[in-house]
This record gives sequence, structure tokens and C-alpha cells, in this order.
Amino acid sequence: MRIKLTLEYDGTNYCGWQIQPNGVTVQQQIENAVLAVTGEKVSVTASGRTDSGVHALGQVAHFDTNSSIPPERFAPALNSALPSDVRVLKSALVSEEFHSRFSAKKKTYAYKFYVSDVIRPLTDRYAAFVAFPLDFAAMKRVCELFIGTKDFRAFMATGSEVSDTVRTVYDAKITLSDDGVFTFTVTGNGFLYNMVRIMAGTLVAAGEGKISRQNVLDAFSSGNRNLLGKTMPARGLTLVSVEYPCDGEENLPLS
Amino acid sequence: MRIKLTLEYDGTNYCGWQIQPNGVTVQQQIENAVLAVTGEKVSVTASGRTDSGVHALGQVAHFDTNSSIPPERFAPALNSALPSDVRVLKSALVSEEFHSRFSAKKKTYAYKFYVSDVIRPLTDRYAAFVAFPLDFAAMKRVCELFIGTKDFRAFMATGSEVSDTVRTVYDAKITLSDDGVFTFTVTGNGFLYNMVRIMAGTLVAAGEGKISRQNVLDAFSSGNRNLLGKTMPARGLTLVSVEYPCDGEENLPLS
Repeated sequence: MRIKLTLEYDGTNYCGWQIQPNGVTVQQQIENAVLAVTGEKVSVTASGRTDSGVHALGQVAHFDTNSSIPPERFAPALNSALPSDVRVLKSALVSEEFHSRFSAKKKTYAYKFYVSDVIRPLTDRYAAFVAFPLDFAAMKRVCELFIGTKDFRAFMATGSEVSDTVRTVYDAKITLSDDGVFTFTVTGNGFLYNMVRIMAGTLVAAGEGKISRQNVLDAFSSGNRNLLGKTMPARGLTLVSVEYPCDGEENLPLS
Repeated sequence: MRIKLTLEYDGTNYCGWQIQPNGVTVQQQIENAVLAVTGEKVSVTASGRTDSGVHALGQVAHFDTNSSIPPERFAPALNSALPSDVRVLKSALVSEEFHSRFSAKKKTYAYKFYVSDVIRPLTDRYAAFVAFPLDFAAMKRVCELFIGTKDFRAFMATGSEVSDTVRTVYDAKITLSDDGVFTFTVTGNGFLYNMVRIMAGTLVAAGEGKISRQNVLDAFSSGNRNLLGKTMPARGLTLVSVEYPCDGEENLPLS
């Protein structure tokens, strides 16, 4: 049977999602926990490979098992074998057609940053530090440009090899909390490598007055990465949720 | 000259404020930074000794120096020598009569906790985990009882030796954020050992229906620690601010 997991993790101490020879990864922690609980060596596939230092509030992953553990009991069972910075929020039985990556329809990311003269130790773990004052209205005006079905190739890390760089962004907004933390939230049908962190860097540059709306429009038409802001650090990025066409039905018993 | 420091720190990796033989403390980090910057071995005194794992948004400390560094430049100078989980938000010249502990008139603490079936990795660093649903209205009704000039000896860690256990609480309130985090904020002229963490544990017990308003009233009149909730973990506690009678005047040049 195939099990879908919804995961929250603090990425600070991990070399990202994907297993690698050097460094501890979230995938490795989950596979170790499955082994501890079921005795099975499985491969756990996620909706996408979060980078080193990136967090998740609602990463989705799946694996196949022959265990007799009831599907919904995998969450507490795996949590008993996981370190406290990785938690399974939910486990559910899904059909064999479900694939955490290929079935995903929408993903939402949040990028947090704060403006201060000095690093704020109680904010800095989950938000990037910006030393210059930002024009919130200018950031909002640039943020609107991200919405739509567009060629986002300028918003891709240089060196990436993806042929189709058209993506649909359903929603993009920026908010400012009482404690001075900006949150950029973006929902799309998929994201290019570093796309959200380049969008966030572009908003910061717009807030600093270094990038105009026209620069961003020119980046869309020319595909020129250099017209946009820098790639912001991983610490501010969180994968908030992943949506599937069958959401809400996954707990129905298979007929 | 005497320098007043306003400090923010993430207490997770520290054995509290006060220097001790085993384990790294915040005081040690500050004194090391002063030594690195001025060459002087000074003793830095705080408004109070935060416990192991307790955080600060606005701890206040002072020290005396013969350095020629301008008072307001101590903040960036010390920050260049401090680890990123401790930061000096502000440095200022104060008179020799100023004492971070004895001159303090009011302190404000915040205690955060959240209700969940499972540890939430992105919330758990700065908030305590509560596994049971809580009655917010019942917590508010008990919270009101904390306000006033009262004998708080029931709210003191057993074994503490303090003769005068009367304290004045100017304000106490509990709020609930959109992401499900309760924040108990309390301002007083001083706090007994573990007083805020016992208040927070009493609110949680009230929310669980284990403690009534009458139990708390009885604890005030009898001084019986056992009528109250448990002492909550350090991770949820933050020293928010310390107020002094001369606040706002400290940056005036001495005449």
C-alpha cells in the first residue's frame, strides 16, 4: 500500500531534503524512521527537494509498504523514531496512482525577511536580515507582476537546465507584521530552481529603490537574470503546502 | 564611565545568563566581547539572571569601562565580537547611579505555548507544547487574578529563600494568534523565582479544566504551591523589556 505523509520540519540543521553522501538530510531521517518502525528499507519521495536550510510547514511525501500498521498510525509511529525538528503531521492511505511530485497541482511557499540595524536573534532563524529600510508600497507594486502564466526563465538560478520555463503563479502577496517581519507568499503550479528566493530578492531590491516595475517587465521579456534582485538566503524560505486534485478524499477507504 | 546595554538573545544554547563553571552563558559571551573590544576584564551585571534556555528581547545590563569608544558605538563593536544568537540592540552612557538590577522599576515577560497533537518543529523553539485542548475563556478568567499587589509565595519555586514575597503585577493578559500560539504577557515590579513559569502552568491547567478560579484564590491566601499548575519549560519564556525611571533621558549628555 502507498502512504502519503504530510511533514513539518525546521531545515536549519539539514542539508536539504534529498539523501546525499555527506551531511544529514530530511529524506534520510524519514527513511531511517520507516526502517525503525517497519523493518523495511523504503525510498521516500517528496513533492520537491527542498534545499539546504529551507523549512517546511506542509511538505508532502509518499512511500510503499507491506507493513500492517494502519495508515493513520504511521504519523505517531514515525514521530517516535524522528528527531524533534522533523514531524509527520498526518499519514494517510492513497491509491497507487498518487505520486507526491507528479500529482501535485499547486504549491505555496512563504519567504520571510526583516529590516533592522542589527541581527535579531529571536527572528533570524526563520527570516532573512535586510539592513536597509524598504518601501512597502513599491514592493507591493512589483509583487503584482509575478501573478499569471509567464516565462519565468529570468527567475531561475543560472546553470539550471530546464527547457520549459513557463509557470503559472496563481497568487503572490506581501504582508508586514506588527513585529516588522515581511512575508512574501506565492502559490503556483510549479517553481523553477531558486525562483522563490529570486522573487524575494527582487522584492527587496524594489523596496530599496534599486529595481523598478519596468526592470521586472524587461526581465520577463528578455529572460535576463541580471535585471532582478539577488537570490535570498535559504533560512527565510518555507514550503507551506502542496495541493493535489484528490485532496479531501484520501482518507476514504479504497473500494 | 557606565554603559547600559539593551540585549536580545536566543537562550536555547545557553546555560542562562550567569557565568558558571560548566557551560556557556550569555554573561560570559558579553564579557568576552568587551574584553575583545576594549582589552578590559569587566563584570557585566544584568537586570536579572535569566535561566537556562530562557530568551530575551530586551534584557538590560551595565558595566564600567575606561575605554575611549563612544558609548553608542559599543553596540556595533560588541556585535562584531558576539555570536549571532546574542546581539546588543543599543548601548548608551548612563550615570554612575544607574544599576541594571536595583534601578529597574518594571519588567515584562512573555510566555508562549501551543496546542497540538504533535510537536510543531517551526513553533517549538520558542513555545512550549501542550497536548490537550484549552478553554481560552477559562484561562482569561484566571489570568485576571494575577493583577494587583499580592503575596505570590505560592507562585515561587519550592526551596527559594526570599523573605518578602509580595509583588505588584501591573498587567497580565493572554492572547491567541492566528497560528494557534497562546502568549501570556505579564508586567510587574519584580518576579519570584519561576513565578512566570508557574503562572503560565496555572493558566494551562485552568484551560484544561484542572484548576478553578477558587483554587487560585485559595493559593493566594494559603501560599500552597500545590494548588497551582506545574512549572512550564524554559523554552517558552522571554524577557521582553525592563523599564527604568530615567528611560528616555539616558542619551542626554551628562552636564
